[in-house]
Amino acid sequence: MASTAALVIVGDEILTGEVEDRNTSVLARGLWRSGIALERVVVVPDRLEAIHAGIAEQLRRVDLVIVSGGIGPTHDDCTRAAVAAALELPLARHPEAERRLREAYGARLAPADLEMADLPGGARLIPGRRLGGFGFQVERVVVFPGVPEYLEDAFETLLAEWPAGARSRAELRVSQTEGRLAPLLRSVQGAHPRVAIGSYPSWSRGGFTVRLVLRSDSSRDLELALTELRQALDQLE
Amino acid sequence: MASTAALVIVGDEILTGEVEDRNTSVLARGLWRSGIALERVVVVPDRLEAIHAGIAEQLRRVDLVIVSGGIGPTHDDCTRAAVAAALELPLARHPEAERRLREAYGARLAPADLEMADLPGGARLIPGRRLGGFGFQVERVVVFPGVPEYLEDAFETLLAEWPAGARSRAELRVSQTEGRLAPLLRSVQGAHPRVAIGSYPSWSRGGFTVRLVLRSDSSRDLELALTELRQALDQLE
Repeated sequence: MASTAALVIVGDEILTGEVEDRNTSVLARGLWRSGIALERVVVVPDRLEAIHAGIAEQLRRVDLVIVSGGIGPTHDDCTRAAVAAALELPLARHPEAERRLREAYGARLAPADLEMADLPGGARLIPGRRLGGFGFQVERVVVFPGVPEYLEDAFETLLAEWPAGARSRAELRVSQTEGRLAPLLRSVQGAHPRVAIGSYPSWSRGGFTVRLVLRSDSSRDLELALTELRQALDQLE
Repeated sequence: MASTAALVIVGDEILTGEVEDRNTSVLARGLWRSGIALERVVVVPDRLEAIHAGIAEQLRRVDLVIVSGGIGPTHDDCTRAAVAAALELPLARHPEAERRLREAYGARLAPADLEMADLPGGARLIPGRRLGGFGFQVERVVVFPGVPEYLEDAFETLLAEWPAGARSRAELRVSQTEGRLAPLLRSVQGAHPRVAIGSYPSWSRGGFTVRLVLRSDSSRDLELALTELRQALDQLE
């Protein structure tokens, strides 16, 4: 079971601001619930060398690399070839992937569509509920389609294979400025290294608020830190 | 004037899926309009070494590194120290930044708030319309607050300093499958290397659509590619 992960998000459309990336938050939430620490996200353009380099760098850093996007049948889809290159594997027609594509497309199937069944050798499919929208895993690399509906669908299949992680989370909202909160946050954080405390200021209709989020893999440590934080906040007011 | 850029987005809240990153698309659109190629985005956690490493890697890759987040006054804000470490500069109290903070916070100013005025030596402020929400630039690194309203505000100031880039963009929507489009896209893309053609399938109320986006720094090349693509699409139907 992986304990650390990185994402490689593929797409010129994100790097030009054409499209807002929705896949990172979906993948991040699923990894967190499964107890896998997401260490880094990189967004790279639709170029084989850039995708290859992004995957190779992250494989040196973490246990599991999840790639999204670039597995369609057009000229700008280079992810299958990039994964094969990064793992030094050949691309080969995957019979089950081919069967799914033929069934999904029927008479509309064009020759180029079948290129989506050319996967790095040894890949196993990660099917979604839709026939044509599958991901795949090969060694420590998981690849999902970039279209959010397809990605979410196939990611659900993978999540169901993983046990739930030990994860606790608590949230407090306060209307103090971050500068006033800083000393007590520092003190509580220092006393509870297994709890990550985040401080997120925001403005909304109600005015200025700071959201304090506590996260831990130990529910006991989280409870202790939360109690201490509440007491310190009471003294501040 | 920079011709390539990378973003370093700082925040545990993005890596845990707590918050969806809105800053990348704002920065990406502004860079594109200014003719600066965004080569990569990396999201890193709120840890000094991770931010430092992210900035140092991107400085080797591109002309300009834009960092967002981690410049508040709490324990999880390490970006100012990470930029100073990456550039081997000391942190020093910036008088204009201090003046702005004192004016913005007034009687509510806490000692920790003033740490936001400790910037890497030689930094120049990038002010926004709000007194307390500034970014700064030092050498080839630009830093903005992570709060989207503050970031957009200060980024506008920077954008106004840059000349508009030579950028052309066109978009077509077709209801063919990507597999049928693939051969003609490959042919048009091959004939027009200065034009980047992206193919983005999506499902909406109207059914299945592929959005074809053409981008170029040459309006003439873009027009030629667009004409050729339209002709090829007419023959397909």
